[in-house]
Amino acid sequence: MNESMPARPKKILIVTAHPEPLSLTNALASFAAQELRAAGHEVRVSDLYAMKWKAAVDADDFPDHPADAPLRVTSASKQATREGRLSADVAAEQEKVRWSDAVILHFPMWWFSTPAIMKGWIDRVFTSGFGYGPQLPTPYGEGAVLGGRRALLSVTLGARESSFSDRGIHGPLEEVLHPLQHGLFWFTGMEPLEPFAVYSADELSPDRFEEAEAAYGERLAGLFTDGPVPYRSLAGGGYDRAMRLLPGTEEPGTSGVGMHTGPRGTASGPVHATPSK
Amino acid sequence: MNESMPARPKKILIVTAHPEPLSLTNALASFAAQELRAAGHEVRVSDLYAMKWKAAVDADDFPDHPADAPLRVTSASKQATREGRLSADVAAEQEKVRWSDAVILHFPMWWFSTPAIMKGWIDRVFTSGFGYGPQLPTPYGEGAVLGGRRALLSVTLGARESSFSDRGIHGPLEEVLHPLQHGLFWFTGMEPLEPFAVYSADELSPDRFEEAEAAYGERLAGLFTDGPVPYRSLAGGGYDRAMRLLPGTEEPGTSGVGMHTGPRGTASGPVHATPSK
Repeated sequence: MNESMPARPKKILIVTAHPEPLSLTNALASFAAQELRAAGHEVRVSDLYAMKWKAAVDADDFPDHPADAPLRVTSASKQATREGRLSADVAAEQEKVRWSDAVILHFPMWWFSTPAIMKGWIDRVFTSGFGYGPQLPTPYGEGAVLGGRRALLSVTLGARESSFSDRGIHGPLEEVLHPLQHGLFWFTGMEPLEPFAVYSADELSPDRFEEAEAAYGERLAGLFTDGPVPYRSLAGGGYDRAMRLLPGTEEPGTSGVGMHTGPRGTASGPVHATPSK
Repeated sequence: MNESMPARPKKILIVTAHPEPLSLTNALASFAAQELRAAGHEVRVSDLYAMKWKAAVDADDFPDHPADAPLRVTSASKQATREGRLSADVAAEQEKVRWSDAVILHFPMWWFSTPAIMKGWIDRVFTSGFGYGPQLPTPYGEGAVLGGRRALLSVTLGARESSFSDRGIHGPLEEVLHPLQHGLFWFTGMEPLEPFAVYSADELSPDRFEEAEAAYGERLAGLFTDGPVPYRSLAGGGYDRAMRLLPGTEEPGTSGVGMHTGPRGTASGPVHATPSK
């Protein structure tokens, strides 16, 4: 990575979730912080295990919620967000996301998803009124509430790469990560890049660690210039009022979750799908 | 549901995860317990919020792990499982899963997945040596370690059904739930049924609640007789040694995660995919 100051320094939030400070996950998170700072960017790190992040959404998240009333999570979340009455840990993380130009999540793949503590960061931070809600701009697209931010998943996996390839039994990595890439990032307006993955990570030799760092360094250098995954926008991307993709809009040969990715460009820079007519 | 004793009483583990005891999620879990008991089955319930279930995997899960050694989760998990030295809460849940003929997970869809507390139940209970691991039978199929069990997801969603339909923007429900249906259940040998879903669940009228209960009652009556999702078996389902599906094996028109489901049968009873030749 070029260590001279970039033309426009950016702000990056790194979130990491592994119980072992010396793990590959945390080593990659530290590497990312170091590389991005060396390139002149500002970096903040939320190390969820070190912070002893509380994972479960409960009534304590909403200090004004009456103890004797049933907890309706969506409405309690909406009210607390609107009134600035969320718990302090959640408010602090929301401030970091708002501050950021890019969010990078580092985690080991456990049961085809994030560790619970990171799911708890998502559940608790992306409240109604912050990450979603009827009062916010249309979801799924750059115009959504957190638009203008880049987003990257940096994942370590015990499995072999072939098993997460296009015909691999676990499913293609990008489809297994659909709930995060499309459901969290793109839904809230962030522009997700292709995930960065280190496979066969349980037994990484020093040589392979160096290779992984080098590959990751290249991805970090492209954090603001690589083309994001060209997911379709709900507003103008070819959907009907019931939020279904209009027949014939999808790329040939795609089905299911894969239908919501438009043509992949080859140039760097944002490539977003627009309806075919 | 028929309230006479069934020919063969079964054992069912219900796991539920909602912070509000009066929530729709917990109402459906209670309804399921009541219906299944009325039909003569044995039921145990793990109410994760009521149990104050610890969500995050950490060193405390492995009491024998030396405090001064780095925590390698997979190997610590494998050793503690083999030696019967897991923490008591995890051991108790493993015993319930082993005891069961069927597992039903009840949860609200939060960010296209389970609440963090339920992800923590999965992360902590399905240890190496219990849910996965090289010393166990081949994963992905009825012969895998937890084979012989039925599995059902019972999900409440705020969104409209159309948005989770085959062309819906969130992705088809079964593909959004792929990490659980295929990645947890089928991977460990359990036979997943089609998920049971209640959409537009934030504002459920009493009439719609009764409809949902009636529909759920029918699904519960078929818990051991309905055909499961016909996922392909790794052993004998048409995969190469790199765990990739052989070209031409998939159903026409399927791609990505959808490729790993075989032809859907119409008869009740198990229908599993075998290679086309």
